[in-house]
Amino acid sequence: MSANSGKHHVVIIGSGFGGLFAAKELGNEDVDVTLISRTSHHLFQPLLYQVATGILSEGDIAPTTRDILGRQRNVRVILGDVQHIDVEARTVSSTSLNQHTVTPYDSLIVAAGAGQSYFGNNHFARFAPGMKSIDDALELRGRIFGSFELAETSTDPEQRRRLLTFVVVGAGPTGVEMAGQIAELAQRTLAHEFRHIDPGEARVILLDGAPKVLPTFGDRLSDKARRSLEKQGVEVQLEAMVTDVDQYGIQVKDGDGGRRTIETMTKVWAAGVAGSPLGAMLAEQTDVEVDRAGRLHVEDDLTVPGHPEIFVVGDMINLKGYPGVAQLAIQGGRYAAKSILGRLEGTTDQAPFRYRDKGSMATISKYSAVASIGRINFTGFLAWLAWLAVHLMAMVGFKNRISTLLNWIITFVGDNRNERVSTFQQVFARTAMQDLGPSAYPNLADPGSDGEDELERNAS
Amino acid sequence: MSANSGKHHVVIIGSGFGGLFAAKELGNEDVDVTLISRTSHHLFQPLLYQVATGILSEGDIAPTTRDILGRQRNVRVILGDVQHIDVEARTVSSTSLNQHTVTPYDSLIVAAGAGQSYFGNNHFARFAPGMKSIDDALELRGRIFGSFELAETSTDPEQRRRLLTFVVVGAGPTGVEMAGQIAELAQRTLAHEFRHIDPGEARVILLDGAPKVLPTFGDRLSDKARRSLEKQGVEVQLEAMVTDVDQYGIQVKDGDGGRRTIETMTKVWAAGVAGSPLGAMLAEQTDVEVDRAGRLHVEDDLTVPGHPEIFVVGDMINLKGYPGVAQLAIQGGRYAAKSILGRLEGTTDQAPFRYRDKGSMATISKYSAVASIGRINFTGFLAWLAWLAVHLMAMVGFKNRISTLLNWIITFVGDNRNERVSTFQQVFARTAMQDLGPSAYPNLADPGSDGEDELERNAS
Repeated sequence: MSANSGKHHVVIIGSGFGGLFAAKELGNEDVDVTLISRTSHHLFQPLLYQVATGILSEGDIAPTTRDILGRQRNVRVILGDVQHIDVEARTVSSTSLNQHTVTPYDSLIVAAGAGQSYFGNNHFARFAPGMKSIDDALELRGRIFGSFELAETSTDPEQRRRLLTFVVVGAGPTGVEMAGQIAELAQRTLAHEFRHIDPGEARVILLDGAPKVLPTFGDRLSDKARRSLEKQGVEVQLEAMVTDVDQYGIQVKDGDGGRRTIETMTKVWAAGVAGSPLGAMLAEQTDVEVDRAGRLHVEDDLTVPGHPEIFVVGDMINLKGYPGVAQLAIQGGRYAAKSILGRLEGTTDQAPFRYRDKGSMATISKYSAVASIGRINFTGFLAWLAWLAVHLMAMVGFKNRISTLLNWIITFVGDNRNERVSTFQQVFARTAMQDLGPSAYPNLADPGSDGEDELERNAS
Repeated sequence: MSANSGKHHVVIIGSGFGGLFAAKELGNEDVDVTLISRTSHHLFQPLLYQVATGILSEGDIAPTTRDILGRQRNVRVILGDVQHIDVEARTVSSTSLNQHTVTPYDSLIVAAGAGQSYFGNNHFARFAPGMKSIDDALELRGRIFGSFELAETSTDPEQRRRLLTFVVVGAGPTGVEMAGQIAELAQRTLAHEFRHIDPGEARVILLDGAPKVLPTFGDRLSDKARRSLEKQGVEVQLEAMVTDVDQYGIQVKDGDGGRRTIETMTKVWAAGVAGSPLGAMLAEQTDVEVDRAGRLHVEDDLTVPGHPEIFVVGDMINLKGYPGVAQLAIQGGRYAAKSILGRLEGTTDQAPFRYRDKGSMATISKYSAVASIGRINFTGFLAWLAWLAVHLMAMVGFKNRISTLLNWIITFVGDNRNERVSTFQQVFARTAMQDLGPSAYPNLADPGSDGEDELERNAS
């Protein structure tokens, strides 16, 4: 397959739900496809929190993209961070370490997703990691388990308290699931493992500026979820806005205007999303408008105004209030692919994109979830089983599905966690080091002090 | 349990085979035990190469130490890097980030293992990672799979060749297993996944200064192993000494005195071990002698001359030519624990430590291994099955054993790899960045440029 094969060349940016399902739809069709992604894997984001809390390995939720698409001979997968889309020239420029690649396209599907939003306070990121990537999840895994380790040997009661206080910001499904799992760790899993601390004394606080947890699930499920969380040991603090974050704590302004500080070392930011910067890049070169969260007001057929060859799908779009969930990306990716194929076959009058809401689910803790499908709401153990089943079947990749199921059996039946390992890079990663100051771990603050000298010597 | 419980207090340094099996032997006995380790996990080193080559997750081979010992109420596990052993005062000083702990002991078992040895050329470490820790294995995983990714988009034929040339230094079991697996990746697993490169064209070179692979296995098995490796596609280059290593290659001096350079980006160092620096620290304060590899000439009963309260076990010792293998550490750890218990019961005349050789095994590739147990040597598929069984049963931890078995079924029956994910920190980790120069990935060369500014602003 070469760039000059003469076939229509579709470039897809992103290997999440949108990009992958577009590629699968185009696989083995009469087009050439190049999928460019910053990572080598397709990430199943809904289960990231389980990587962070030691239930799953990263491989379980992130099969390798070129493995999934290996048999689609017309699809080429390349690793690259997209630096520029040239709408006029119809090219995409990407880099991978010090390699630069320019990929021309006939049609473009931009499925670059969303990152964490700190609502303009980007300096929060250093102290309160988000939950959008494997890197985030593994960093949080190191911090969460590492906090208990450090608390065990701490001789400073204040620091110990800070280490044993966990704050999750954002009471959507991700935040609820994280808070529930950390509470379960503290109350059950780690109960017998320490001698100087009682992990059960850890505080897990879930904050949100809204008056409800899971606000999109409706009042009944929202209240049920809150009660489950509190039963689980999570302190739910609503109408609480985060005003600042630093190494040692988080500052909160409550609904009544009062301000307070929570002293805590581990903060998880699950509060907002911002569309990929590629959205703004497209807005600069076309007439498409971008909203405050960086998402694009695309046409009814998911294209950029004036540029029917450019589709945008998934978390990057703002269309008819459709929610930024996996199903939007999957359906959008497929729709864009079908549109392209239809055009090549001469089909006209493509129907506008219509999102089909397949429901929402969130799990609170072992054996407890809330689910809303159409008009049917249900909770408890049955909802939890349904949650497991839906997510298992929604995952792409057979082997990681089996491995996930096994890890769930280990965790939920055995009450154990198989995936707690962190590397030094993760436990004492740059953010943690910055938290505690470079003097805290001198050998790692200057990574490979021998190496640093080498660099200087080689440079001189 | 407190330091002043009045019971005999045993401190164990290290959570590898030696430390863990000593702790298990002392568990629920009438002593207090504190196990101090730099990592939170017990590492099953023989399978590290499978984490590096995408077969296993890190959780599969590294169960959490305090989880394994959770039910031994007299055993306390603490995370700490031992900075100092004060033989006179009988204390161990350790640090964990910015926390310092001083632990007094009545008996001490030093089981701190060994690190990679570069035979005095420590600057090799930056370019040729070893295989002694989870960090190493995940870094290598990122490099190995990342090399194929980068080769796919490389427009420089020389760089592509360097990316597709892999060199493993050291033809002991670790090196043989790594080389075999990388060859299998290139020849089989990745075969269908790329469009611009043919992974099968990758070169995998196994180097050793000795004239045989697996020199300790005897000539017959050694020759068999070499033939298997070559059939697998590995180029075996013996009597080849490494004289220098840099970003782009490795310099070799052959047996005939000739010198050459192999251009290669990914180098794995599996060639030598050096006893923990704690050995030298003990040598400074006692009469124990240390050999060139940093190992201690302990007494027949594994104690330090003149200090019967200090035991040294496993890779740290040089005793009667016993090999630095897992069984030595396991048997030594148990022996030391039993000695301590025996003394407390008033038993005298402890028999000297005698190592029982349970045989050696090494796997070459799927369905092919060599095994030597006593006088019985066998090879091929049966040896491979035996290798799997022995390693599976030798692992500590039930759940990770099940998970490992599942991952083996996925890999060996399914011909797939479930655990290929690397984080940015791993693929573009400090060593990789240093390899290609900080300009290669500007956003990561200054980790979190926002953060760096913050640090400066906070400091000013």
